[in-house]
Amino acid sequence: MKSNKIIKKLFLFAGFFGLMAASAVAQFQQNPIISPELHENGSVTFRIMAPAADSVKINGNWMQGWGSAVHLSKNDDGLWETTFEDLTPDYYNYTLNVNGVRTIDPSNPWVIRDVRNVFSAFILPGEESEFVQLSEGENGTVHEVWYPSPTLDMEQRRMRVYLPPNYNESDESYPVLYLLHGGGGDENAWTELGLANRIMDNLIHSDEAEPMIVVMTNGNPNQESTWHVAPGHDPVHESDSQNPMATERFEDSLVNDVIPFIESNYRAKTGKENRAVTGLSMGGWQTQKLSLKHPDVFDYYGVMSMGIIRESQFAMNAQTHLELTNQNIDALKDSGYKLYWIACGTNDFLFDSVNFMREVLDGHDFDYVYRETGGGHTWDRWRLYLSEFAPMLFK
Amino acid sequence: MKSNKIIKKLFLFAGFFGLMAASAVAQFQQNPIISPELHENGSVTFRIMAPAADSVKINGNWMQGWGSAVHLSKNDDGLWETTFEDLTPDYYNYTLNVNGVRTIDPSNPWVIRDVRNVFSAFILPGEESEFVQLSEGENGTVHEVWYPSPTLDMEQRRMRVYLPPNYNESDESYPVLYLLHGGGGDENAWTELGLANRIMDNLIHSDEAEPMIVVMTNGNPNQESTWHVAPGHDPVHESDSQNPMATERFEDSLVNDVIPFIESNYRAKTGKENRAVTGLSMGGWQTQKLSLKHPDVFDYYGVMSMGIIRESQFAMNAQTHLELTNQNIDALKDSGYKLYWIACGTNDFLFDSVNFMREVLDGHDFDYVYRETGGGHTWDRWRLYLSEFAPMLFK
Repeated sequence: MKSNKIIKKLFLFAGFFGLMAASAVAQFQQNPIISPELHENGSVTFRIMAPAADSVKINGNWMQGWGSAVHLSKNDDGLWETTFEDLTPDYYNYTLNVNGVRTIDPSNPWVIRDVRNVFSAFILPGEESEFVQLSEGENGTVHEVWYPSPTLDMEQRRMRVYLPPNYNESDESYPVLYLLHGGGGDENAWTELGLANRIMDNLIHSDEAEPMIVVMTNGNPNQESTWHVAPGHDPVHESDSQNPMATERFEDSLVNDVIPFIESNYRAKTGKENRAVTGLSMGGWQTQKLSLKHPDVFDYYGVMSMGIIRESQFAMNAQTHLELTNQNIDALKDSGYKLYWIACGTNDFLFDSVNFMREVLDGHDFDYVYRETGGGHTWDRWRLYLSEFAPMLFK
Repeated sequence: MKSNKIIKKLFLFAGFFGLMAASAVAQFQQNPIISPELHENGSVTFRIMAPAADSVKINGNWMQGWGSAVHLSKNDDGLWETTFEDLTPDYYNYTLNVNGVRTIDPSNPWVIRDVRNVFSAFILPGEESEFVQLSEGENGTVHEVWYPSPTLDMEQRRMRVYLPPNYNESDESYPVLYLLHGGGGDENAWTELGLANRIMDNLIHSDEAEPMIVVMTNGNPNQESTWHVAPGHDPVHESDSQNPMATERFEDSLVNDVIPFIESNYRAKTGKENRAVTGLSMGGWQTQKLSLKHPDVFDYYGVMSMGIIRESQFAMNAQTHLELTNQNIDALKDSGYKLYWIACGTNDFLFDSVNFMREVLDGHDFDYVYRETGGGHTWDRWRLYLSEFAPMLFK
């Protein structure tokens, strides 16, 4: 009943806007399917019209890996459907697979990109997902900014800058969190996949976090911006020696180019006590290197889903990294940093690297806070970690 | 050869980042296809791996309507492919259709949304598309801003605000262009589909247009923002009487809420000589109504792909609209406006409404500039119109 009502409304809409958007109307009429449909009891139904298909599967990030796809059932009209009953409220993504071809859900206009792959997205409302929902209070602003990067020999690079609620109305200055993405990501990742701006709005409105500026850079030193904005600078085609995990060029550019730009173009408080940095995976390694090579820049560090690798991989040299830690950790200890936070899930494929990092740090009597969770190397963890890390800053 | 080389590089990448992004690697290995491939001679090849499919078609916006899809050919591996030879350089979008199911191109991470439909996108480089390419000069900034809208009884609504290059470095004030989308669109349309920020960067760098602020609002008065950011406020589900084309609530909110917000939060020049408004389709009608009901606010008007309808449709009452024009046009003439520009394509389904509008305006001896092009009711026209309208402003 409910579904029919919505379909009827969509048909009304098709007639309504149809001639206004001629390209849209045909697709509306062909495809008046509601998917995903979020039911009031918390279950979720997915649908796709595919009369000629023999097999339709759904891969969702709530499943145990992308291999454990679930088959949809076909009715007499060729409409395929399946319902999930017990999902925890969260920000989810999924793809469909129709006769072996990966596709987004054609009925769902919310599409997100992770590395080079595109997914359909939805938020299942509920207590657990409140922190990523649009806040009812005044929201912060997100700027897409180009800044010069002499350190990387680029006239301009792109970043996203979050300004807290009331930034415009006030004349206060704010501390700054530098928020780094993982391998294959870019400056869009933390807003698109991480919903970082919404998380910050909610934390600030509930007084859990101090109002702060959040700077989301592009951590690939050979890329001006996300690949389709500045084509021809695709980190996919980088050699190992140019790779962001093999060089410290990004880290140097953050300190030399980004921080001065932020502090001269925004009302940012200066000094290490007003700067924090955190990142996931590759960004967690960049955070470690920043702490070791630039110990006078930040007072707060968050290393998410990354430790010290025991054997070289991913263009990271294990020996070099361990040596850097052993050689520079005393300078970091002497710097008077306020927080060194490490978070990882027990199913993360880098969990062992975190164990090794803790061994190394313990061997140096280095003070850190360790947060162990369930889960793996996934964005639901990194959203959670941001929601736990930000409230510890600048207090 | 070239294609194999790229595929090899992608495999290297998969191994490289694979363990870093476990969800990504499987899809890379399953799908190391380059699509679209832009060849140096200007031709474009599209590919999709679909061994089980009997039919794969492509619908591109360079074709004569969405019905004239082109079939791809299948090779022995199940890879489908087709090449187009003579495309004019432009910003294109397309979808694939695999055995009757509409899908984006799974190899192309650039995805855009028009109304509720999702498309794969690419730019074919060349002289004709230079105006939508990333500029090499310093680029302007795009802000995603929430502003209060008492006129619409909303605590906050979202808009995008473009600031010209050098805004931060200078202390100048700038004139403002208010840029309105069409029916079913929202505040993301002009940047995502229109690439308005790039067009403005290029026009400003070449000294064709004055540096200006460009404000891209959400023209649906019942919607706080694009539907997936603020769900539950979907213009799809509006009744006729609430529809943005049937009310003047948005137009009033633009004048009462948006303009004061922009002029107090940005270095915006004030006064009608420093304000322009233009929009396409529904936004063209909103522009007309702004000119008739608020003739003291703007000096520059651009009406794209919209005229005066002869018969009521799309929740617009033809009689009311004509009466409004007849009653208020003298006030508009007396306002001393500097430019009233009307642009339409001869294949636009609203072309006749533009003819009627010209008859009505001519009957009042009303001064306007008429720009007739080929083409229809499509974004390639509106990008072109912006590139022609903006240079005429504030001079």
